[in-house]
Amino acid sequence: MEFSSKLLQNAVNEMSQLPGIGKRTALRLVLHLLRQPPTQTEYLVNALRELRTEIKFCKKCHSISDIEICEICSNPNRKNTVICVVEDIRDVMAIEATSQYRGLYHVLGGKISPLDGIGPQDLTIQSLLDKVKSGDVQELIFALSATMEGDTTNFYIYKQLEGTAVKISTIARGIGVNDELEYADEVTLGRSIINRVPFENALKNS
Amino acid sequence: MEFSSKLLQNAVNEMSQLPGIGKRTALRLVLHLLRQPPTQTEYLVNALRELRTEIKFCKKCHSISDIEICEICSNPNRKNTVICVVEDIRDVMAIEATSQYRGLYHVLGGKISPLDGIGPQDLTIQSLLDKVKSGDVQELIFALSATMEGDTTNFYIYKQLEGTAVKISTIARGIGVNDELEYADEVTLGRSIINRVPFENALKNS
Repeated sequence: MEFSSKLLQNAVNEMSQLPGIGKRTALRLVLHLLRQPPTQTEYLVNALRELRTEIKFCKKCHSISDIEICEICSNPNRKNTVICVVEDIRDVMAIEATSQYRGLYHVLGGKISPLDGIGPQDLTIQSLLDKVKSGDVQELIFALSATMEGDTTNFYIYKQLEGTAVKISTIARGIGVNDELEYADEVTLGRSIINRVPFENALKNS
Repeated sequence: MEFSSKLLQNAVNEMSQLPGIGKRTALRLVLHLLRQPPTQTEYLVNALRELRTEIKFCKKCHSISDIEICEICSNPNRKNTVICVVEDIRDVMAIEATSQYRGLYHVLGGKISPLDGIGPQDLTIQSLLDKVKSGDVQELIFALSATMEGDTTNFYIYKQLEGTAVKISTIARGIGVNDELEYADEVTLGRSIINRVPFENALKNS
């Protein structure tokens, strides 16, 4: 792509560093900003800069939070004996949106992934282990994605906690509530048969 | 979407003002920036701010240009008697990439679109008319998109130039060189039959 303007080229190049944004999309976005009043670019630029420089993480669960201990961790009505282990804040938001979970979270900040150079020390795993070993945590719920990296991370934490009394569970994998069996992948369908639940339980939860 | 952080919420909101970027994608992009070194956000923010505040347009063709008269307009090897009329700089870049056109351009900055509140006075039409009436332009090539707005804009300019000697043409519409007939839409296929060209011409250009 040849540009008639260095300024334009720079903006497009930086924009296309974002995941899933190619040069063509970046150009479309940047030209859109040029057609809008300058204040729109100013607001965007300020919001991004402030977020990046002033971002804070909850001291307990490591989720993004403007205050030292986030609202979930400091809520006395939440069960602090159960901790759901997730990758990032999007997972927290998704689980919170269900209104089905009243425990706390622990945000790892990613998964163990040797190929990407991410080891246990790059995540908040030590803080989780300390929490479990020193606190009154009774149950950990693994809610990482069902990929090799997710499984590796789960297994690593599980091994580190061998010998402790904490109960470790993982979220149920199965056919989505509104999904048709014929479109489900074999692995999911297989797991959903192996991990079948008593019909009375299903009745209770529906 | 409920956010645990005002900073995060702000950044996501501003990001999702961009066309084609929903809240979910905006969150993904913003979290990506948080995982990268702060310099990446800084570069992006600076590039966007500089572009928006320092952007200049060529005095002749109104394309984006860091210099007063853009490289195309100031190139003595280009034919200044032919002007290709386009919507925005993307069209200029697309046509330049073909290396088939040696004339000049005129960037309108959009199309006449009453529904969006865009009239002739919001575009650079007057400047085009002045150029044609006072200069030695022999041909205008309309290369706007084949939508109602594009056709309206073409027709408006055409009417304003009635009585002048300038020749007005429009780019050929037809089946793409590598496209299959069975997948072409009826309008395009219909036009390509009506506007058929002598086989000798096609031979010459292939």
